[in-house]
Amino acid sequence: MSEHLTRLTAMQRGLRTAGADLLLVGPSSDLYYLLGLAGNPSERLKLLLVSREGQTAMVLPAFEVPQLAHLDVRPEAYPWEEAENPFQALRRAVTALGGARRIAVAPQLWSVFLLRIQGALPEAACIDGGPLLAALRMRKSAQEVSLMRDAGRIADEAYLKLIAQPLTGRTELEVLAMIHDALRAGGMDRLGGGIVGAGANGASPHYKTANRKIASGEAIVIDYGGQHHAYSADITRTPHVGPPSAEFRKVYQVVQDAQQAAVDAVRPGITCEAIDRVARDYITRHGYGPHFLHRTGHGIGLDGHEEPYLVAGNALAVDEGMTFSIEPGIYLPGAFGVRIEDIVVVRADGAERLNTCTRDLVVVQ
Amino acid sequence: MSEHLTRLTAMQRGLRTAGADLLLVGPSSDLYYLLGLAGNPSERLKLLLVSREGQTAMVLPAFEVPQLAHLDVRPEAYPWEEAENPFQALRRAVTALGGARRIAVAPQLWSVFLLRIQGALPEAACIDGGPLLAALRMRKSAQEVSLMRDAGRIADEAYLKLIAQPLTGRTELEVLAMIHDALRAGGMDRLGGGIVGAGANGASPHYKTANRKIASGEAIVIDYGGQHHAYSADITRTPHVGPPSAEFRKVYQVVQDAQQAAVDAVRPGITCEAIDRVARDYITRHGYGPHFLHRTGHGIGLDGHEEPYLVAGNALAVDEGMTFSIEPGIYLPGAFGVRIEDIVVVRADGAERLNTCTRDLVVVQ
Repeated sequence: MSEHLTRLTAMQRGLRTAGADLLLVGPSSDLYYLLGLAGNPSERLKLLLVSREGQTAMVLPAFEVPQLAHLDVRPEAYPWEEAENPFQALRRAVTALGGARRIAVAPQLWSVFLLRIQGALPEAACIDGGPLLAALRMRKSAQEVSLMRDAGRIADEAYLKLIAQPLTGRTELEVLAMIHDALRAGGMDRLGGGIVGAGANGASPHYKTANRKIASGEAIVIDYGGQHHAYSADITRTPHVGPPSAEFRKVYQVVQDAQQAAVDAVRPGITCEAIDRVARDYITRHGYGPHFLHRTGHGIGLDGHEEPYLVAGNALAVDEGMTFSIEPGIYLPGAFGVRIEDIVVVRADGAERLNTCTRDLVVVQ
Repeated sequence: MSEHLTRLTAMQRGLRTAGADLLLVGPSSDLYYLLGLAGNPSERLKLLLVSREGQTAMVLPAFEVPQLAHLDVRPEAYPWEEAENPFQALRRAVTALGGARRIAVAPQLWSVFLLRIQGALPEAACIDGGPLLAALRMRKSAQEVSLMRDAGRIADEAYLKLIAQPLTGRTELEVLAMIHDALRAGGMDRLGGGIVGAGANGASPHYKTANRKIASGEAIVIDYGGQHHAYSADITRTPHVGPPSAEFRKVYQVVQDAQQAAVDAVRPGITCEAIDRVARDYITRHGYGPHFLHRTGHGIGLDGHEEPYLVAGNALAVDEGMTFSIEPGIYLPGAFGVRIEDIVVVRADGAERLNTCTRDLVVVQ
């Protein structure tokens, strides 16, 4: 059985369990996962319909029908011509599948389409299909983990290349460009945005990289990633330019040890919030609790952020094959930030890191 | 008055005219347009609220509040902490703005958020905010047109660079990589996907570029773009590798003349469907009507595709400052495709092309 057929069959089981009749998926990582069909959302309606009872269908622009020819599971096409109303094609498809009273909608589908679907199918209640998709996507196959390991290696190599060079006097944007060049040279297909925040800029976790020169005596929070064969990497390191202060060394050590403690805590069965708590308690015990401003991590796979989220309140138990970041940080306003992030995969005996380049304090020129 | 304040004020007028109380906008080109805040959608709720009566507010992760400091119009922040329910922050913001019974939602907001908004604000009806946003975004300022002209020039130069090289024996993916390199070298900040379809592959308008060698005697449909300072370029050319057949020459001429006729038809006041009809009628008169498989064009700006759409049924009259593609094509299954696309801006006296590199038949080695 093909990988996509296996996934679609599992989704049908999920729909029956959830009491839903149909899943609707637009161009997104979810569509790629279920069908192997890549592409970005656009203004033209393109929707995969997965019915709980066996058929799949696809509403799509007529001139895109040739895209279906190469799929290993080929949904029945409900094409619409450029001047037609695509929601009539959707109605025809839903009717052919036996109707629907409860429709799960993939989370990233644009609202403009959901509003039109709600209008075109007033007899149906739309619910969030995210949990159904996450239940499948969270557990990676050996093949998926292998692709993520490759992506992680490319990210690691870009870091090692970067810290082999002097960075004093470079701008943050130049450093980001150096990383992007290394990622591209390493074979990354698609680059994420990335964050390079030097000195006090590093104290804002989602800082927007700017045209600002890096001076000796500053730490640099460097967070980046990308996709390799559709699977994501994500890494953060905080090298220091010139000699670090005693306070920086102390904070760095706390973050590094908190990250290690959280990685060590990972095993099948531990909850997401418990992993978060390990990192948070460690940082709190060392006096920096109020400066750890975000959750400990996020799942990763086809999307850079996906379930499971390592955050207080998430009682989900992690399981073998799940992949997520572990990235505690301490942010001292007006001074500096430190964040250390690796991706890990849950194994029977604990976490395997997919980023293996040094986490020790690196001092560059 | 700042550009963003002008746009927000115009949006408030639009809300009053539409009888809506509030516009909700997540990270997207719409958010960049209204506020100058860039960023991609993620699982964390981040929403600009534009009220019809004067205030703007933003629901966002607490640790992202520093992002607002640099904006020229700073919305009131309704931050939420990582373990909090962000929809409670949304309710607080909506209440502070005087409540809402009719909420316009930006079209690209993810469905997972719309469903939660509908649940959190059951007293409100959600409507598509796309028309309100399009009414503003369709008409570009002189500054926006200037950025698009720059983007168009980078795209043009990449084409001229490409056709200066032999292409026989290259794969489609290699040609796409050559174009991407040229776009990057030219200063494009962000690359689109791009299509390179050789021979019969070019007969599928949205063909997915593959690892297939290009042979002498084949035409190549090459469609690409990207963003420069947030504004998009989009161009298609169809060079021929080795000597073209008489049939190819004939079809090429029909497409080139249809494109010219449609460009010549552009003037303030002509409808979108009328421009489409000019290209379509020309191609139909020459016997290829059934092989022109798509609309004649799409608007372009911060998004690669946006309103106005040049398609049968769209009675919108174009106006000065509107920017869109004109890209007729003829697709002969099993043989070849030809598409020629330029971006134009509507001027008082007609269309100005933002792509000016040769549209004549180019034969490469």
